[in-house]
Amino acid sequence: MDTPAALLDTVKLQRNIQRMQQRADSLGVHLRPHVKTHKCAPVVAAQLAAGARGITVSTLKEAEYFFELGIEDILYAVCIAPHKLPQALALWRRGCALTLITDSLAGASAIVDFGKEHGATFAVMIEIDCDGHRSGVKPQAPLLLDIAAVLGDRLAGVITHAGESYGLDTPDALQAIAEQERARCVEAAQRIRASGQPCPQVSVGSTPTALSAANLDGVTELRAGVYAFFDLVMHNIGVCRLDELALSVLTTVIGHQPEKGWIITDAGWMAMSRDRGTQSQQHDFGYGQVCDEHGEPIAGLLLGSANQEHGVAQFAHTDLDVVTRFPLGTRLRILPNHACATGAQFGSYSALLENGQRQDWPRLRGW
Amino acid sequence: MDTPAALLDTVKLQRNIQRMQQRADSLGVHLRPHVKTHKCAPVVAAQLAAGARGITVSTLKEAEYFFELGIEDILYAVCIAPHKLPQALALWRRGCALTLITDSLAGASAIVDFGKEHGATFAVMIEIDCDGHRSGVKPQAPLLLDIAAVLGDRLAGVITHAGESYGLDTPDALQAIAEQERARCVEAAQRIRASGQPCPQVSVGSTPTALSAANLDGVTELRAGVYAFFDLVMHNIGVCRLDELALSVLTTVIGHQPEKGWIITDAGWMAMSRDRGTQSQQHDFGYGQVCDEHGEPIAGLLLGSANQEHGVAQFAHTDLDVVTRFPLGTRLRILPNHACATGAQFGSYSALLENGQRQDWPRLRGW
Repeated sequence: MDTPAALLDTVKLQRNIQRMQQRADSLGVHLRPHVKTHKCAPVVAAQLAAGARGITVSTLKEAEYFFELGIEDILYAVCIAPHKLPQALALWRRGCALTLITDSLAGASAIVDFGKEHGATFAVMIEIDCDGHRSGVKPQAPLLLDIAAVLGDRLAGVITHAGESYGLDTPDALQAIAEQERARCVEAAQRIRASGQPCPQVSVGSTPTALSAANLDGVTELRAGVYAFFDLVMHNIGVCRLDELALSVLTTVIGHQPEKGWIITDAGWMAMSRDRGTQSQQHDFGYGQVCDEHGEPIAGLLLGSANQEHGVAQFAHTDLDVVTRFPLGTRLRILPNHACATGAQFGSYSALLENGQRQDWPRLRGW
Repeated sequence: MDTPAALLDTVKLQRNIQRMQQRADSLGVHLRPHVKTHKCAPVVAAQLAAGARGITVSTLKEAEYFFELGIEDILYAVCIAPHKLPQALALWRRGCALTLITDSLAGASAIVDFGKEHGATFAVMIEIDCDGHRSGVKPQAPLLLDIAAVLGDRLAGVITHAGESYGLDTPDALQAIAEQERARCVEAAQRIRASGQPCPQVSVGSTPTALSAANLDGVTELRAGVYAFFDLVMHNIGVCRLDELALSVLTTVIGHQPEKGWIITDAGWMAMSRDRGTQSQQHDFGYGQVCDEHGEPIAGLLLGSANQEHGVAQFAHTDLDVVTRFPLGTRLRILPNHACATGAQFGSYSALLENGQRQDWPRLRGW
């Protein structure tokens, strides 16, 4: 098997999928997985088989790809650029139940006007800003009702994502932001309903909040993505164990600097991605946690630096003979900081099946 | 034109290619461009047309791809993992003049033994460590002559790369490290020659040192890659102007947070890459310098943060009305920190030709 390669442990994957589905079931909400993490048909199939209802996508290309594969209920969870509306229309005309989102009057008007012009009634959700993290309308803002009025009967609901949860790492703080995400999104829905408009869907989610919420009263669906693979950032946040990470990068030792204790690998940043998501967390894993060939973490051995096709693995404190312990040609696995970014560096996953076999699982890329 | 897209200004590209070729010509060395930056056939064609001799690659997949396109003289500038030798053999048997590199006795023996077993005489260069940056044998090390002896008449020369030059930003420091790169690589060649073995090739290079060397006495070839596109890291190092950057990411404004002065773009880290190479430099450009649609930088406007398919562009100090100035649907271009990493996020470049037309230039990905 050539290296670097993206290994996907499907036993761990299945466990992660079951865990989140059970979570959604016990909270009484539908689960609509975000496929941007994996962009991979067999993974989506496993999520739907476990009970997921529809999918969330980050690009229209993902929507087209998964619609071709038979998935009709698709939420495009990025405020649509007006020039992409013809692409959305083509999907809608082919029978895709595509839901769009917006957080502005200009965006809502563009969708409504384009729809009227082409005889299409897109379902649209209003994005709510629950934590100041990125996009969205504040639940108390007058703008919320103005957008709802422009959308009229196209309004399918409200949607939010507590991106700030990625900066937390205690159960109490996570539970508090999960409650904030829930409460602010429900508040927005209630304001719209109080104004006399229906607001059927209330969609919330991020992997940290989904796994921390005490209740989801008033919410109809949960969205989360990275939980399928988990990663070192999620480990640092505290929502998974290291042995639950399903994605790793298989690499080969291609050299050493013995006096420095450096092990040079053929996984550099082209394989790991440039993501340094653990840099600002309690435990900085560099470019990844190094494991043996079977996926067992090697204590203290991190991918400390990375060039395009070179990684440098180092122990924090070492007088070990790295050449003897990890000779040229040794296989290692590296757990990534951020599964979405690392997966995106590969055209396919090498899926390790429960029966010991390997399968090539293609992965969508680009726009 | 859909966004995000990787725009390649071919007028700037041509100027950059000419500049480096003239530099090599005036220094009296061959230029062997590193194609890992662009992985793109029309760019290689322009480099060869300008006078380049052969290419440098970072993966055997690049070697296969460019050999298919008629390029025979290829240097694979990463110490080869032993399991990849059959792939190198297949190329060699098809007539590719493939040069390998090594920096260890184990590596040299693996290449020689495999070659003997299969009747192949790979040309091999020894990688020299000129600055403690990554791989390579120190020029003074006894190991150097031991490896040379193992390689015997397969030894094609010595090769080094002053990766530490990326951490510098003054002409004096750059000239000093260029001289160090030259002197240490030449010293290694002279030691080998003094031991009675020929060492014909002396190959050095990085974009910063190539553009800073006072002379390359004793060197036979220069390797550099990112100069074809340049980027914000190179700008901070001081080897190019902002208006020489050939690669930018075209993006569309998809929203705002008016009271924060945030402009939300559809170029997030999936388009820009997670590379934060300017973070530790004199001028931190965030995830990139924002320009207008025509590529003119907008003073003080940076892509301050990035999620997968969302970027947040912000002015350092602003009370501007960003909604009025950059309404929904506005096109912007973003200059990247690191052209190699940003290019790698795309399956093709949208090349802007001198006659105003656009061409799709495919880009190789994966291993």
